[in-house]
Amino acid sequence: MKVGLDIGGTKTDAVAVDSAGTIAARVRLSTGWGSDAVIRTVLEAVRSLAEQVGAIESVGIGIPGQVEPGTARVVHAVNLGVDELDLAAAVGPELGVPVRVENDVKAAAFGAHALRSGGAGSMAYLNLGTGVAAGIVTDGELWRGARGTAGEVGHISIDPHGPQCRCGQRGCIEALAGGGAIAERWGRPGALPVRDVFDAADAGDPLARELRAGLARGVAAAVRVLVLTADVDAVVLGGGITGLGPRLMADVTAELAASAEASPFMRSLRLEERVELLPAGSPAAALGAALVGAAREGAFTRG
Amino acid sequence: MKVGLDIGGTKTDAVAVDSAGTIAARVRLSTGWGSDAVIRTVLEAVRSLAEQVGAIESVGIGIPGQVEPGTARVVHAVNLGVDELDLAAAVGPELGVPVRVENDVKAAAFGAHALRSGGAGSMAYLNLGTGVAAGIVTDGELWRGARGTAGEVGHISIDPHGPQCRCGQRGCIEALAGGGAIAERWGRPGALPVRDVFDAADAGDPLARELRAGLARGVAAAVRVLVLTADVDAVVLGGGITGLGPRLMADVTAELAASAEASPFMRSLRLEERVELLPAGSPAAALGAALVGAAREGAFTRG
Repeated sequence: MKVGLDIGGTKTDAVAVDSAGTIAARVRLSTGWGSDAVIRTVLEAVRSLAEQVGAIESVGIGIPGQVEPGTARVVHAVNLGVDELDLAAAVGPELGVPVRVENDVKAAAFGAHALRSGGAGSMAYLNLGTGVAAGIVTDGELWRGARGTAGEVGHISIDPHGPQCRCGQRGCIEALAGGGAIAERWGRPGALPVRDVFDAADAGDPLARELRAGLARGVAAAVRVLVLTADVDAVVLGGGITGLGPRLMADVTAELAASAEASPFMRSLRLEERVELLPAGSPAAALGAALVGAAREGAFTRG
Repeated sequence: MKVGLDIGGTKTDAVAVDSAGTIAARVRLSTGWGSDAVIRTVLEAVRSLAEQVGAIESVGIGIPGQVEPGTARVVHAVNLGVDELDLAAAVGPELGVPVRVENDVKAAAFGAHALRSGGAGSMAYLNLGTGVAAGIVTDGELWRGARGTAGEVGHISIDPHGPQCRCGQRGCIEALAGGGAIAERWGRPGALPVRDVFDAADAGDPLARELRAGLARGVAAAVRVLVLTADVDAVVLGGGITGLGPRLMADVTAELAASAEASPFMRSLRLEERVELLPAGSPAAALGAALVGAAREGAFTRG
């Protein structure tokens, strides 16, 4: 059995996958804050799965931070309170199996690809969470790029007069479509600020309408960038904001349809048909981590 | 010997390449207008090279139009007066060797990659001609994508209030940085309108300054898109506009430096160091066509 973990800011999703790629067991735990708590969460999740499925061959971990190429060193996992951590060194000796670590969006891209098509075709996974980033998978391989920034479409500016992005630029896709940026511009308390924005927009609130329109604009732009640059067959949307489901999709497809209306070239791309939503509760990220964890050195990645 | 042709709107560049990848002979011809003239140009170029180097094994042709995936059928090569043409069927029987056809930007990307690094690393070739498009090469393979639009960064909008693009959208990179769009907005006669714009901008003309700034803005945006999406190691600029050489590069690097100044994230990408200019008169496109022409089925491409 291969184990995969998706360590999120609040929850950790863990699966055990058999040799046929089928999920044999799944557990969900709260993620603690800080390196020690993250390490404890990993050990507890693996132990819990091992009790259910028996022997484990490998562990893969998807984590929301920068993973240094070719290592298991995580840096700047700010949502977890982790500044720097070699996760394989921290949990490998106790687990006694190979441990690999991958950026969570890349792991989710890989898992979404496996779930969607069993590894055929090309796909981008566009994560709409606090930030916006994508993972690109083609021919069964994760596109990692030369220096680790492949899929960082969130920091492409699409409007020189757009809102200030935390990165320092103006009008970045993330400044329009990132949950963090939307919550900050909305500025009212609430557990699910983007949902509040959608509700308030429905009720006619002008700021909410502007923010909601900006979200659709940002997501549509990211889809165009991914198709026009990497020409992936499909763009799968995932991440916290996609909890809005059909309401989000309706806005995004309307935005794509509007640009297709204006442009025969855009129309020829049939973007509305190429955008999909990852089902709520999908184990894509944990599954992807399990597959990355079981990969031989250098497999599944290119660029 | 492998022969490669780069069929341009006015000139055709043709090379014969030996088994070590060295250019053994090169000829340049005027390109005729329309399908018959294009066919005659191809036959004449190959004949002329054969006289110099002897037996020829394969012919590859780069052409400014859409090449239908897996075929030699060229459509919409408007600069050549070709609406639709199966170039392999048209010249293959007379030449008696395998003929492959590739979009000229993709062929140039492949050739630039071979010239630059002998096939190592990843690279995008950004063609600044009448239009703007890129070819992406990684691990020695051309990134073709799922539906033939990989590298079409020219039609990514970076400004909702930017100039109207011929594609129907507003503020496309091509509407700012395409030679055709610049010439149209400049609107004054001249054989080299973009050069005229640079000269007039130096002399203080306000429209010229705006157009010149827009060109730099568009090119810098294309570089950012290519690095943030595909994370290529380097972006090589080529095409007619790059005849402006250091004047263009100074504008583009200043634009990239300005965004690095504003954004620590952009600064970390070191974009100024990753942009290069294809040397004037480089045989990249014809060489790339020769390599594509000699490739086995399915080689050199992925996505």
